Amino acid sequence: MYNSERMDRQFEFLRELDKEKFIGRQTYLTDAKRKENDAEHAWHMAVMTLLLSEYSNEPIDVLKTISMILIHDVVEIDAGDTYAYDEEGKRTQREREQKAADRIFGLLPEEQAYKMRELWEEFESGKTPEAKFAKVMDNIQPIMLNDATDGKAWSEHSVKLSQILERNKNTHIGSEQLWNYAKENFIDENVKKGRICKDVN
Amino acid sequence: MYNSERMDRQFEFLRELDKEKFIGRQTYLTDAKRKENDAEHAWHMAVMTLLLSEYSNEPIDVLKTISMILIHDVVEIDAGDTYAYDEEGKRTQREREQKAADRIFGLLPEEQAYKMRELWEEFESGKTPEAKFAKVMDNIQPIMLNDATDGKAWSEHSVKLSQILERNKNTHIGSEQLWNYAKENFIDENVKKGRICKDVN
Repeated sequence: MYNSERMDRQFEFLRELDKEKFIGRQTYLTDAKRKENDAEHAWHMAVMTLLLSEYSNEPIDVLKTISMILIHDVVEIDAGDTYAYDEEGKRTQREREQKAADRIFGLLPEEQAYKMRELWEEFESGKTPEAKFAKVMDNIQPIMLNDATDGKAWSEHSVKLSQILERNKNTHIGSEQLWNYAKENFIDENVKKGRICKDVN
Repeated sequence: MYNSERMDRQFEFLRELDKEKFIGRQTYLTDAKRKENDAEHAWHMAVMTLLLSEYSNEPIDVLKTISMILIHDVVEIDAGDTYAYDEEGKRTQREREQKAADRIFGLLPEEQAYKMRELWEEFESGKTPEAKFAKVMDNIQPIMLNDATDGKAWSEHSVKLSQILERNKNTHIGSEQLWNYAKENFIDENVKKGRICKDVN
C-alpha cells in the first residue's frame, strides 16, 4: 500500500523542520512589535520569488530557486541564526552549519537527503543564477521590512551604511534592478532620515 | 533603469502579505506551546510538497502546486481564519474571502493580480491534480502537528472522529498513499489513545 519506512523518514524530517518556527531573526514584522522567525522569512522570500523573478539578471529556474529558499535556513535548527553584523558568530558559522546539515538532511531517505543537501550547498556557494537570485531575496526581504518599520532594527543595532553596503556588495549580481530599487527606496531614504548611520558617501 | 510603478505595486502587495504572519490558526507547533500562523503553515506545506509529491495520485506540476500553496491563505488577511469545525463561520466564509481576494490581489500589477487570483480560485475549487494535492497538504500538515503534540488541539476542541473524516472525505482523491498513512499513523493512533472522540467505527 505504501512504503512505510520511507514515509516515516520523510515525516520525521518534516516534524523536525517545525523547529524553524522557533528560530528568531532580527527583523521586525510590519507591525514593529514582534520579530520574525525563519519559517516566516522563507515563506516571504518564496512568494517574492514568484512575483519578482522577472528582475533576475540571468534567466532562472523558478522551482529550483523557490526550493532552495524554502530549505535555506534548515541548518539554523541546530546552528542558530547568525545576525548579519555579528562578526564573532560568523567565524564559527560554517562549521556549525555543516554539522547541522549532516544531521538534519540525514533524516531523509538517502536520495532526498542528497538532493536537499546539494540545493543548500548551492545556495551557500551563491554561484549559480538561482543561488544568486535567492541571495537577493534573502537580503532584500529584511531590508523591505526594516524600511516598513521606520528602520527599527537598524536603529536598535546602530547599523552603519557601510555595513549594509558590504553585506549587499553582491546583491546587484543577482538583480541590478531590485538592488537599485531597494537602495533608492529602502536604504537611501532611511539614511536621509537618520535611521542608518551615514559613514560613507 | 527599472519600472518604478510596477515595482511599487509588487512591493505594496509583498508588504501587505506580511500580515499573514499575524493570522493565528488552531494548530499547535511541535513544542505544544504556541499555535502556528498562516505564513508558517504555508511554508511547511510547501516543503512537504517538495518532498511528498511522489505520492500524488496524478502527476502534478510541482511549481504550480507550491505557488498555489504559498498564496492559498492570502484572503485570510481580511477574512480571518475559519476553523475547520466552525460551522457558523463557514457559512459566510466564501463571501468574505471573495471580497478579500478583490482587494488584496488587486494591489498587484494587473496581469500578476489575474494570475494569482486564478491560482487561488483553482485551489478553492479543488478540481485539478495540483489543487487536489495542495488540499492534501492543507489537511495533512495540521494532522501531523496535532499528532506530534499528543492531540492537544483535538482534545481542546473535543473533535470527533466523524468530523475529521468528513473534512478529509476528499483527501484520498489527491493521494491515496498519504491519506492511508495519515489515517493509520496520526488519526487511528489518537482515537486509540482517547484524544479524538470515537463516534464512528
